[in-house]
Amino acid sequence: GEPTGPLVKTAIPGPRSLAMLSEMKKIQISDAVQLFADYSKSIGNYLYDVDGNILLDVYTQISSIPLGYNHPELLDVLQDKENIRTFINRPALGVFPGENYPQRVQNSLLRIAPKGHTEVTTMACGSCSNENAYKAIFVWYRRKQRGDNSYTPEEETSCIMNQLPGVSDLTLLSFKGAFHGRTFGTLITTHTKPVHKLDIPTKDWPIGTFPRYKYPLEEFVRENEEEDRRCLAEVEELFDRYNKRGKTVAGVVIEPIQSEGGDHHASPAFFQELQRIAKKNGAALLIDEVQTGGGTTGEFWCHDHFKLDHPVDIVTYSKKMLIGGYFSLPEFRPREGYRIFNTWMGEPSKVILLEKVVEIIKRDKLIENVRVTGDLLLNGLKDFGNRYPNVVKNVRGRGTFCAFDCVSMAKRDQLVEQLKVEGVQSGGAGPVAVRLRPSLVFQPHHASIFLDSLEKALKKM
Amino acid sequence: GEPTGPLVKTAIPGPRSLAMLSEMKKIQISDAVQLFADYSKSIGNYLYDVDGNILLDVYTQISSIPLGYNHPELLDVLQDKENIRTFINRPALGVFPGENYPQRVQNSLLRIAPKGHTEVTTMACGSCSNENAYKAIFVWYRRKQRGDNSYTPEEETSCIMNQLPGVSDLTLLSFKGAFHGRTFGTLITTHTKPVHKLDIPTKDWPIGTFPRYKYPLEEFVRENEEEDRRCLAEVEELFDRYNKRGKTVAGVVIEPIQSEGGDHHASPAFFQELQRIAKKNGAALLIDEVQTGGGTTGEFWCHDHFKLDHPVDIVTYSKKMLIGGYFSLPEFRPREGYRIFNTWMGEPSKVILLEKVVEIIKRDKLIENVRVTGDLLLNGLKDFGNRYPNVVKNVRGRGTFCAFDCVSMAKRDQLVEQLKVEGVQSGGAGPVAVRLRPSLVFQPHHASIFLDSLEKALKKM
Ligand code: FES
Repeated sequence: GEPTGPLVKTAIPGPRSLAMLSEMKKIQISDAVQLFADYSKSIGNYLYDVDGNILLDVYTQISSIPLGYNHPELLDVLQDKENIRTFINRPALGVFPGENYPQRVQNSLLRIAPKGHTEVTTMACGSCSNENAYKAIFVWYRRKQRGDNSYTPEEETSCIMNQLPGVSDLTLLSFKGAFHGRTFGTLITTHTKPVHKLDIPTKDWPIGTFPRYKYPLEEFVRENEEEDRRCLAEVEELFDRYNKRGKTVAGVVIEPIQSEGGDHHASPAFFQELQRIAKKNGAALLIDEVQTGGGTTGEFWCHDHFKLDHPVDIVTYSKKMLIGGYFSLPEFRPREGYRIFNTWMGEPSKVILLEKVVEIIKRDKLIENVRVTGDLLLNGLKDFGNRYPNVVKNVRGRGTFCAFDCVSMAKRDQLVEQLKVEGVQSGGAGPVAVRLRPSLVFQPHHASIFLDSLEKALKKM
Repeated sequence: GEPTGPLVKTAIPGPRSLAMLSEMKKIQISDAVQLFADYSKSIGNYLYDVDGNILLDVYTQISSIPLGYNHPELLDVLQDKENIRTFINRPALGVFPGENYPQRVQNSLLRIAPKGHTEVTTMACGSCSNENAYKAIFVWYRRKQRGDNSYTPEEETSCIMNQLPGVSDLTLLSFKGAFHGRTFGTLITTHTKPVHKLDIPTKDWPIGTFPRYKYPLEEFVRENEEEDRRCLAEVEELFDRYNKRGKTVAGVVIEPIQSEGGDHHASPAFFQELQRIAKKNGAALLIDEVQTGGGTTGEFWCHDHFKLDHPVDIVTYSKKMLIGGYFSLPEFRPREGYRIFNTWMGEPSKVILLEKVVEIIKRDKLIENVRVTGDLLLNGLKDFGNRYPNVVKNVRGRGTFCAFDCVSMAKRDQLVEQLKVEGVQSGGAGPVAVRLRPSLVFQPHHASIFLDSLEKALKKM
């Protein structure tokens, strides 16, 4: 079982981590390594490192561990002899799927499909989920434009050589501060830090402004509504401008909470109106739930909070879902095989694990746990916001997906370090935010331990 | 153990496959599905389907199964309690690697590193391997241009908005018929079928001509040397043209055998000269060994056949390597963390499996097996080329990585179908080729069974 709390014995990284790091540096760039973990000892919400330190983990491998470490029922999945074979015989899923694969997808992904969705495509990570969703949007849009006529010979020959009319000049509208991935297509729509983008060739696609609210929300209602209007007007203007220039906007891609960019939230009204603008322009709306999906916002999909008029056209997922992919409305299904395709198309062993994860989330009412724990966490943070106003600012969150800002990047980095000293593994987001990304088994008593540790850290700042 | 030979009881796909296919069609596009496999029964070189058919598999999940199905020693890897934990605790490898991870990389990837390579970066599939290798090339090239000066404030702000000078106008030179992936960056350099490219926005990067040889090689020495010269002159001309236009060519990306495009080979002399041209232009040479790597060409890396003057700058891998990634010379290591980064950076469970695969390849001398079996296979195919000249043309191959052309796509598709009736799962490549991609445990007696089945199929054409 879990320990009763964190335990810090050495500096972090400790001497054994540092020794391994120097080995790793011989092989590859390792500048982002924080510590070497002991994944055989790590358990539940606690990450053990190779120096014997035990950290309460509210960062969970960049938000990608749904049920904590070494959940006994996930270990059991691998005790099953039939299941084990799935882990060593990875098929080309699009060509030779295994027995009962459709049933397994029904029992996992489709059990938690977003409202209005009955179709799902599997991929392997957040980037290929978004890349392929972008492709599905362009294929869909061009089919609408063609009026279902098949391709001309000229389109077929020109596309091979990267030329119009076979390829298109369509664009997607993304937002400042957005993060959708680091491969070339997703990187066009990612606008976080220079280190992600410098030197990489890109394209001129429209970039809108994601709202930046003033907190606490209840004190700045008018200002924040004005911010929504300003950002939405800019979206309308970008549609007009790019459409007129022949760089027709085929879709809008947005996170329900800008996560890597610094945990920026926008109102349900903003998302409702954004969907209306996209529809009015015949463009698709893609909501990227790679970081927000899976339950930690208090709904399985964060966009459930928004009460949209219509189902979202495409919803991408990965991280806590263990595999990647997207849900899409039927009209986004390509007409021909091999339009959306790759060798592996995800991985059945991940679907088997996800099936168990979904079963546990439902059975153990983990979304409800997130709501209760999240309230506690958010109220605790708000209290610190009042008591330590020079360190904790702009407290915000849904469920346990919470964050606050520090006054500067230096202060934020210092606080994240100090939290480690107090036994908590957290993480930064954007230039000045601390983000909390606990797993779904983070309970009220873990929140209390976290808040105690945070207060100790705050007192030392 | 393996059965003594194939066994075909039903049409393929059989009734149970068809029933599952109709379930799958409700969920997603399934036009590429050929059959539903029984991965608990499949063994060694034999793929079992859900209708009880047993197929000799010379296609191996699009060339991605190194040691056949259900290798007993890979199953044993999953009997180990410590190993199992690696399969359910997937870390963010770039931030929190697990205990002894550098050692595991040494024992797997670095044991089979291409000549001159001591550094490796892990990714998760062929596409992200190439996407990130492209990024590494652009970052390297711009650093050379800057003379190691750090970025200007203007570069930092402009790149976020997809503008020069922060982003670049650099290009990569690729080849007609090339396949490097289907994500946006790799798709710019992929030039196979229209269905891969239609409707997707792309970029104007230089596209050269990969040699198209006349067979048998020994009869067309002069013509094929002339073809090499023509293609290499075009590469030089493309460098000049794009460099002059300010779309500086930072690298060349090429497969050692164009695989998806139709199994097109080029001579060692061609690759040697291509490397010289790249060097002369200060551009990187990236050899994409995603499909050719892992031993089936009779060398662990296909480019080992080419006896190049210098180590290749970057070599990408995936498929039979179970994970993805790239080997790169030290100068391609970025200076800052997070330049080449993503949440998972590959997966340690795949490294554990690969460690065992590499051990078995060495211990069982499987590369030597490939050479012996490949000779048998190629000679058998050449014999058919003489005896069935209207169906089997342009026989070519290295190791067991063999192919031949049919007179038309229709004939090719018919032969692949007829081979299934005779108990062989093969696959097409490009418009008219049949490609053989058996695993490394494909032995001389499997080659004999394959050649017998092929002859039966040829007689019915
Ligand atoms: S791009 Fe997603 S796994 Fe490679």
